Amino acid sequence: MSQNILVTGGAGYIGSHTVLQLLLSGYRAVVVDNLDNSSSVAISRVKELAGEHASNLDFHKIDLRDKPALEKLFASMKFYAVIHFAGLKAVGESVQKPLMYYDNNITGTIILLEVMVAHGCKNLVFSSSATVYGSPKEVPCTEELPLSALNPYGRTKLYIEEICRDVHQSDPEWKIILLRYFNPVGAHPSGHIGEDPCGIPNNLMPFVQQVAVGRLPSLKVFGNDYKTKDGTGVRDYIHVIDLADGHIAAVKKLADPSVGCEVYNLGTGKGTSVLEMVTAFEKVSGKKIPLVMAARRPGDAEIVYAANGKAERELKWMAKYGIEEMCRDQWNWASKNPYGYEKSA
Amino acid sequence: MSQNILVTGGAGYIGSHTVLQLLLSGYRAVVVDNLDNSSSVAISRVKELAGEHASNLDFHKIDLRDKPALEKLFASMKFYAVIHFAGLKAVGESVQKPLMYYDNNITGTIILLEVMVAHGCKNLVFSSSATVYGSPKEVPCTEELPLSALNPYGRTKLYIEEICRDVHQSDPEWKIILLRYFNPVGAHPSGHIGEDPCGIPNNLMPFVQQVAVGRLPSLKVFGNDYKTKDGTGVRDYIHVIDLADGHIAAVKKLADPSVGCEVYNLGTGKGTSVLEMVTAFEKVSGKKIPLVMAARRPGDAEIVYAANGKAERELKWMAKYGIEEMCRDQWNWASKNPYGYEKSA
Repeated sequence: MSQNILVTGGAGYIGSHTVLQLLLSGYRAVVVDNLDNSSSVAISRVKELAGEHASNLDFHKIDLRDKPALEKLFASMKFYAVIHFAGLKAVGESVQKPLMYYDNNITGTIILLEVMVAHGCKNLVFSSSATVYGSPKEVPCTEELPLSALNPYGRTKLYIEEICRDVHQSDPEWKIILLRYFNPVGAHPSGHIGEDPCGIPNNLMPFVQQVAVGRLPSLKVFGNDYKTKDGTGVRDYIHVIDLADGHIAAVKKLADPSVGCEVYNLGTGKGTSVLEMVTAFEKVSGKKIPLVMAARRPGDAEIVYAANGKAERELKWMAKYGIEEMCRDQWNWASKNPYGYEKSA
Repeated sequence: MSQNILVTGGAGYIGSHTVLQLLLSGYRAVVVDNLDNSSSVAISRVKELAGEHASNLDFHKIDLRDKPALEKLFASMKFYAVIHFAGLKAVGESVQKPLMYYDNNITGTIILLEVMVAHGCKNLVFSSSATVYGSPKEVPCTEELPLSALNPYGRTKLYIEEICRDVHQSDPEWKIILLRYFNPVGAHPSGHIGEDPCGIPNNLMPFVQQVAVGRLPSLKVFGNDYKTKDGTGVRDYIHVIDLADGHIAAVKKLADPSVGCEVYNLGTGKGTSVLEMVTAFEKVSGKKIPLVMAARRPGDAEIVYAANGKAERELKWMAKYGIEEMCRDQWNWASKNPYGYEKSA
């Protein structure tokens, strides 16, 4: 019998890629998603890509804050583990609408954990973020760095990490893996699933992609006077398929009796500047990306990249793809779906 | 017309004393309380004490997480401000049941703030705590000390403070006053209202009081090897009536156009050891309190007391009562209600 994995936010960018990798690894995946910032088309596409495994995927349009609906789902089947992606993730929006972020991310998580306990499911993999390192004092960022948050979005990630540690402390039957993502980019190599943000993109690659397909005129580069090789900010970009595979490794790790509440960086360990990333994208796409230099954004760190030794040692996982593959797959998705899921349908 | 003040947790210890002072100051008070850890008898007693003002008090048994009930209340009348006491407050219990604490305190507050915004009420006074100073590196604790939390209860207070700062940042129409309480003790001088904790008391004075009336055999003193005058921990005890008056001062301060999101310590600025407090209580009660020395509790700080200059300058408030009055009123309440509200009824 396949293990049932509940995937919250499974219709989203990282969620959908992880669901596909789960199916291909022989798991049954049950997705709950409120579709506030994602599309059910992603679920159909995952089914197509999953081939013979497609029947192992179920989808339920549920908001985590709808406790009765969640209770009903947990009453209907046993879950081996929950991978919890669901949450809002735009830094700027979180500053404008903090209550919306606290309600979605924190209240949603508290209710999820309560329902899990009530139904005896105490295995959790949570989508944390390198944002919990704040403006890191040193790089690479090891999992032991002091934590801080610079905005409401970051606080939701930090609070949920701390809530998880408290929950495990109170009941050691819990096995919890907190995954701190660096900068996920790229798409499935088929070009059938990828990132489809609502509104103006917040992150570099969705922005680059929209410039490439002609939806936006130019790329705004926030800060070119950082103390980096070319003056632009340096980040640790990671291919979304590598990231998805990191979740499979984490789910497998839950079976290890030594697991309590653990935290792992998921990054490549390599720093890449904005300009390097743009150049790589231009090369694979053959498109020129016009740049507009703009001021630094408050709260943006200069250089952030992961220490990835812990994940490699303990999860037996490491990223396989480089910048070129990330840009190639980003462009493949973009050129096949220039207006994302809904609008291309 | 009197201003309507919504008081969440208004049947609790500090809440009930504040409601009485509000009524006596000419406000209308509307209490919501789920009565999980409080008694409706407190509300009746407050009415008795309020005399001619009794008709200005309304009570609704509502849990803050019941959003429709809260919406209905806000739709039925306009509130000038909310004083938000409602929350669980036992440190040890929060370590055992963190989700219960996060759900009650955080989810409850998020829902309250959402309903306030939806009904155009953006004046808030929140019950924070000196617990947000963690183990303070220096005393007296000024409002500028770095913040930290040592347990889930403390985290709920810290998170709510940060949520309030984010909410104000996103919408400067909010006026928020965060009050950091030191150690509230004592009772109304009439002896008709006071603290009535469920189960074994967590704090010094309710414990002392239960020993004095014969409900417990002896007082456990946690640590007598601290670097203090007599080896026992030093805290800043504050008479609950002084604390209640601090809330009236805060509500008045909300009318000051310069108020944004402000934080004030409510303490006396004086440190008193456990043994000094016990001696003072023995003196006014004529009861001997047998002591049992025990190990320090993890997370207990050595010496904590308030810098109270900011509240004095900006709220025009300072504590009037000393240790003797605190113990006198604690004993008056205890001897008149040895088994609290329900059991004495």
